[in-house]
Amino acid sequence: MAGAVFSRLAHKIASIEGPVFPLHVGDTWLPPFDAGRMENLRYEDWQGIHKYTSPQGMPALVDAIVDKVRDQNGIPAERAGVLCTAGTTGGLAAAVGMLAAPGEEVMILAPHWPLIRGIVESFRAVPVLVPFYDRVDSLEAAVAAVRACITERTVALYVSTPSNPTGVVVPPPWLQALAELCRSQDLWLLSDEVYEHHAYRGEHASIGSFAPERSLSAFSFSKAYGMAGNRTGYLVGPPAAIAQCRKISTHTFYSAPTSGQIAGLRALQSGDSWLAESRRVYQQAGDRAAQILGEPPPAGSTFLFLDVADRLDERGIFGFLEDCLDDGLVMAPGPSFGRGHYDSYVRLCYTSAPPDHVAEGCRRLARRLGR
Amino acid sequence: MAGAVFSRLAHKIASIEGPVFPLHVGDTWLPPFDAGRMENLRYEDWQGIHKYTSPQGMPALVDAIVDKVRDQNGIPAERAGVLCTAGTTGGLAAAVGMLAAPGEEVMILAPHWPLIRGIVESFRAVPVLVPFYDRVDSLEAAVAAVRACITERTVALYVSTPSNPTGVVVPPPWLQALAELCRSQDLWLLSDEVYEHHAYRGEHASIGSFAPERSLSAFSFSKAYGMAGNRTGYLVGPPAAIAQCRKISTHTFYSAPTSGQIAGLRALQSGDSWLAESRRVYQQAGDRAAQILGEPPPAGSTFLFLDVADRLDERGIFGFLEDCLDDGLVMAPGPSFGRGHYDSYVRLCYTSAPPDHVAEGCRRLARRLGR
Repeated sequence: MAGAVFSRLAHKIASIEGPVFPLHVGDTWLPPFDAGRMENLRYEDWQGIHKYTSPQGMPALVDAIVDKVRDQNGIPAERAGVLCTAGTTGGLAAAVGMLAAPGEEVMILAPHWPLIRGIVESFRAVPVLVPFYDRVDSLEAAVAAVRACITERTVALYVSTPSNPTGVVVPPPWLQALAELCRSQDLWLLSDEVYEHHAYRGEHASIGSFAPERSLSAFSFSKAYGMAGNRTGYLVGPPAAIAQCRKISTHTFYSAPTSGQIAGLRALQSGDSWLAESRRVYQQAGDRAAQILGEPPPAGSTFLFLDVADRLDERGIFGFLEDCLDDGLVMAPGPSFGRGHYDSYVRLCYTSAPPDHVAEGCRRLARRLGR
Repeated sequence: MAGAVFSRLAHKIASIEGPVFPLHVGDTWLPPFDAGRMENLRYEDWQGIHKYTSPQGMPALVDAIVDKVRDQNGIPAERAGVLCTAGTTGGLAAAVGMLAAPGEEVMILAPHWPLIRGIVESFRAVPVLVPFYDRVDSLEAAVAAVRACITERTVALYVSTPSNPTGVVVPPPWLQALAELCRSQDLWLLSDEVYEHHAYRGEHASIGSFAPERSLSAFSFSKAYGMAGNRTGYLVGPPAAIAQCRKISTHTFYSAPTSGQIAGLRALQSGDSWLAESRRVYQQAGDRAAQILGEPPPAGSTFLFLDVADRLDERGIFGFLEDCLDDGLVMAPGPSFGRGHYDSYVRLCYTSAPPDHVAEGCRRLARRLGR
C-alpha cells in the first residue's frame, strides 16, 4: 500500500536544520472561521456534543447536506441517501467495502490520490490504474482510456475532480460521457469531490448529477473549511446503496465525530464568506507557486505535480527528494500517485503553509530545477 | 449484519408519547470533566487542533498511552506498538482487517458486543460464536468451549472483559489459560477492553499481558471519560502487527480526530478523579437497577442482560420490546448479541440516562416481568 512510500525519508525529515517547507502534506494552513472552531462549540448549546450520534449522522446535518448537494452539486439527494463519514477516506472506504468483492477490479483515474489504492486493497479488491489526467486531451480520448481498462471483473470507476495531484478540472461533458459509459457497462461511479470548491479555472461538475442511480459521491469539510483534523465528510448516493455503505462505516468507524459534525453544520450554515476568502488566498498561492516554477497556473485543487525527470540520477526520485531535504523542502514522491507511471514526478501542496513560506520553498525548488 | 436488528422498532420509538427511557444505547450520561470538553480545547493552546495528525496519532498521546498500558494493563508496549483509532470500533476493524483473509474464521465469545460480528463480516471473514459468558463456570470449561470451535480456518479469538452485554469480569487465570491455548494454536487474540475501568466485582486483567506477542488490545476513552462522540480510542500490540493494522486504519478512517486525541491526552493526564467518581455513580446505578429487577448486582460494564423467555408470546422478543415501548422503555434485542443463542434476552444500559430515570425505567420493566 501507498503509505509506506511516504515514510522512507521520515527519519531524515526529522533531522532537518533550518526552516522546513512541509509541502508534502495535503493540508490547508488557514484556521477555520470562528464559529467552526472547537472552542466555540459550547456544551451549553450542544449537550450531546460528547455523545454518540446515529451512525448516519446528526439529523440537522443530514438535512443541511441534502440541501447543499441538491443546490450546489445537482444531485437529487434525499435524506436516506446521505451518510456522514470519517472524512472522505471513511466515505470512500464505505463505498468500496459495499460494492467490491475480493478480486473485483476498481478502475482509478491516474495520477491518483494516494489513499484510494490502499482503500481498494483493504477490502481485497484490485486497483486498476487508468493513466488519464496527464495525457487525455479530448472527450473521445477520455472515454477510450477508461473503456480500454474494463474487464469482466470491473465493478467501478473512481473519478476525482478537481484532481489531486494534477489540479485538472475535468470538463462537465467528459464527466457526462464517462457516466454514460459506466451506465452502459453497469458500473458504479466513485466520485471524490474533496476539492469541489477549489476549481479556479474551468467549472466543477459532479459526475453524480449525470448518473445519480450509480454514483457514490464523497465530499469533505476538511479542505474547504480548514477542518482536516475533524475527520468529517459525507457520502451521497442511492438510498439502498447508502444503507449498505452504512453497514461498512458502522463497522469500521461507527460514525463521524459529533464535534466534527457540528462544525460541519456550522460550515454549511455560515461558512460561505470564509470559504470565498480562503479560496482567493489559495488560488493566489497556487498562481504564485506556478509562476516561480515556470508552470502554467493550476486549474484547481491545492497541488502542483511536476515531472523532474531531467534532474534525476541513478538514485531516482527518492534521491532527488532526499537532496531537496538539504533545502528544508519536503515533497511527496510521484510513485504514490501511480506506481510505475509517475516515478519521475513530485507533488507539492501550495496551501499547507502560509503563502510567503510556500513561495520561498518554491524558489528553492526552482533553483534546484534550474528554472 | 447486526445493525439492522436495532432499527426494526425505530419508527415506533419516534412516536412514543410521555417519558422515554433510552436504555438500548450503550452510552454514558455524565458529561466529561471540564478540561476534556471541546469548549476547553483552545485554539491558542493547540494551533494544530483542526489539522491532520499522523495516522498513528499525536506523539504526546502515543507516549501517554505507552505509560498507561504498561502501568495499568501490564502490557509491555512500545511507541511503535500503539495506534490511535476511531474508537474501539476503528481499532478492532483495523485489527480484523489486518489478520483475517476472506473466508477465515474469527471466534467470538458470546453473548457479544453487536458490532464485532459486522466488523468480521466487513472484511469477508467468518464470525464463529462461542457461547461463553452465560454458561462457562470454570477455567476448564472456558478452555474447552473455545477449543471446540477451533478449525483449520480459525485465525483469532475475540475476548471482551468486562463483558458487554453480560457484565461478566473474566477471572485472570481464565484469561491466562485462553492466552496459552491461543499460543499453542498460533492464533491471534483480539481483546476488547472498553469497560476496563468498570469492573466493580472481580479484578480486570488484560489478556495481552499474558501473550503480548499475539494480542491486539483495543481501548477507548468513550465510556470511561464520557467521550463516545469523540470517536477516539487506541489499539496496542506487537509493532510489526500494528504497522500492518495502520495500513487498514489509514485507509478506512485515516486517523482519530485531532480534538478527540487532545481530549484523550487530557483524560490520561488529569481525568483520574472524574473517572473514580463516575465509576462510583455508575456502579450504584447498576446495583440499584439490579435490585429493582431482582437480579444479582453486576460485576462490571454498564449493562444488564436478562432472559425474559417466560414473558414472550408468539411474536417473540420483538413483540416484547414493542410492548415495552408502551411504557416508553427502549431496550436492545438479544439476537444482536448472538443470533440463535440469545433470542429471548434483552439488554439494558444503566448508564445511558441519570440514575433516577434509569430506576424508573427498571421499575416499569419489573412490573411488566412480574418481578
